[in-house]
Amino acid sequence: MIERDLIEQIRSLSSADAPALVQGIGDDCAVIEKSGNRVWLLTMDTLVESIHFDCNFHPPELLGRKAVAVNVSDIAAMGGKPTFALLSLGLPEGFNEEWTRWLSLGISKACEQYGCLLIGGDTVCNPSGVSLTLTVIGEMERGRVLYRKNGQVGDTVWVSGQPGRSAAGLALLQSGIRLEKNTDSSLRPLLKAHLDPMPRTALAIDLAASGLVHAMQDISDGLATDLSHLCHQSGLGACIIADYLPPCEGLKKAGILLNQDPMDWMIKGGEDYELLFTAPPDATKTLQLIGRDSGQPLSAVGSLIEAKSVVLVEKGCGTTVSDEGTDISFQGYEHFQVG
Amino acid sequence: MIERDLIEQIRSLSSADAPALVQGIGDDCAVIEKSGNRVWLLTMDTLVESIHFDCNFHPPELLGRKAVAVNVSDIAAMGGKPTFALLSLGLPEGFNEEWTRWLSLGISKACEQYGCLLIGGDTVCNPSGVSLTLTVIGEMERGRVLYRKNGQVGDTVWVSGQPGRSAAGLALLQSGIRLEKNTDSSLRPLLKAHLDPMPRTALAIDLAASGLVHAMQDISDGLATDLSHLCHQSGLGACIIADYLPPCEGLKKAGILLNQDPMDWMIKGGEDYELLFTAPPDATKTLQLIGRDSGQPLSAVGSLIEAKSVVLVEKGCGTTVSDEGTDISFQGYEHFQVG
Repeated sequence: MIERDLIEQIRSLSSADAPALVQGIGDDCAVIEKSGNRVWLLTMDTLVESIHFDCNFHPPELLGRKAVAVNVSDIAAMGGKPTFALLSLGLPEGFNEEWTRWLSLGISKACEQYGCLLIGGDTVCNPSGVSLTLTVIGEMERGRVLYRKNGQVGDTVWVSGQPGRSAAGLALLQSGIRLEKNTDSSLRPLLKAHLDPMPRTALAIDLAASGLVHAMQDISDGLATDLSHLCHQSGLGACIIADYLPPCEGLKKAGILLNQDPMDWMIKGGEDYELLFTAPPDATKTLQLIGRDSGQPLSAVGSLIEAKSVVLVEKGCGTTVSDEGTDISFQGYEHFQVG
Repeated sequence: MIERDLIEQIRSLSSADAPALVQGIGDDCAVIEKSGNRVWLLTMDTLVESIHFDCNFHPPELLGRKAVAVNVSDIAAMGGKPTFALLSLGLPEGFNEEWTRWLSLGISKACEQYGCLLIGGDTVCNPSGVSLTLTVIGEMERGRVLYRKNGQVGDTVWVSGQPGRSAAGLALLQSGIRLEKNTDSSLRPLLKAHLDPMPRTALAIDLAASGLVHAMQDISDGLATDLSHLCHQSGLGACIIADYLPPCEGLKKAGILLNQDPMDWMIKGGEDYELLFTAPPDATKTLQLIGRDSGQPLSAVGSLIEAKSVVLVEKGCGTTVSDEGTDISFQGYEHFQVG
């Protein structure tokens, strides 16, 4: 059983609708009504020690920041502004108080940075180590919410920043390279992308306000898997062009250092918390300006097509699946893989 | 460091206020605005294997129900109606699929029973075992929300049902007694109170609607500890009269079987999910009627007094702390006890 099956099993058991519900399971956030034409967005994400992070190289302050960031990224994925947070903190018996103080500081600093106020939660003992579950609540105008399901045939597929950095950063950290003063400057952004990711909140709000974007989500499980989610919800497929996904200097260098193909990180690597969105081709110029204004480079990496899968081709393709394309649907991080 | 210190540390790091916030950290739920004169209530509680439950005797369907119930109880504690839920489910590597199916069924059945729709969440791997974190969202009229902080000197302290059952039930389960067809009928309610607690949602809504209650919360960490929270928030103390807390047949029987004083369970036992509230003495008759109508016996067990602690006396007391009283402030379940 893999994660999608488990979610499907739980979803199939839950009833369907409620008056104040705008969007239930199936997107980055649930959406419920606020007042007037505004809505609340709700998301919940968990980080577990030895699964999602390694205390041997993850400084507690950055870990606290990351636990907030991954949730804030879900709010950004719909175009919303983070507002409140609830935290359930699991700590092992005999936890280190000094370490926990830095963790708390990271959480509170990140909450302040993203403008979300901690309003409740729980603290529990977790025998196997630290776990952090947050519910982050965001808000925005109802008519501006960007769902996964509204992608349209012919839409250009866009990504912000440089996908793959976080996965490469993790591989570097696991190989013993650390974020220190004398760390190679081209590798630093990779290490930072894993240890201290920055959700694209401001860019997301601008994209939602532009009215140009059809569908959006964040990249948490890797470009291939997350684009598969967006395509599945939109009832479409996608064609991604490898040539349009140029690796940055750091990815190339990390690839050489670790004897890895950077394309694997870019396509399958998780935890980038970049934005993945689709828009009609005639919006290209305006979107590029929005990206420039927000300081985040945006790359057009492919198109939505009439198909059932996400394929990767070397060079540009049309609107049908090319025979030479490689099916990359749902290739990325899996939370479970049982029996 | 104990749980209260940890919560205080995190709270002290978070900024203070936001426009849509009605109540932040410090009560059973956070409260944020909905539309018109209505508000959303938000709570988050976690159950961890081997800390909060034992899979050797906790059937998965009842465990799923309990994870929902403990959160729904926080909504009830403010007088609200549960509406939505988010679930973060942690499962160990190689989890049992059949067991997980029963767990999911319990979660979904409980959501249906309490009228809250599952709208999102996360699934993760948790090395040490199963963990369930839920955020439950409730709603109610803003002016009817019952906080901990509004207790007044002279208020009668009320509890619903029979506190202590869950702790006694757990002790029975740990001694090898199970909920089976031929289990002694006086012990069954104790076992059920631990395995499958019933939050007092309907009663709570009636109490909030009555306009008679000053302060309310649920009993999750034991009567002594939870009354201490209410008193601390209200800037008062309380005097509880042992005589007014009569143990039921089952508690007496369990006490004899396990050679325990039932009073310990009633005062310090956690996880009852009964309601604890205060109201002026002249509301007594009406409250008794509300209790009768809801099928939940209500007991007046003491009074709020001008003091800094919660004391237990054998028989009735006035409005000052009696010398013979035993200080029971914050005597109950502690999630952490370090260094």
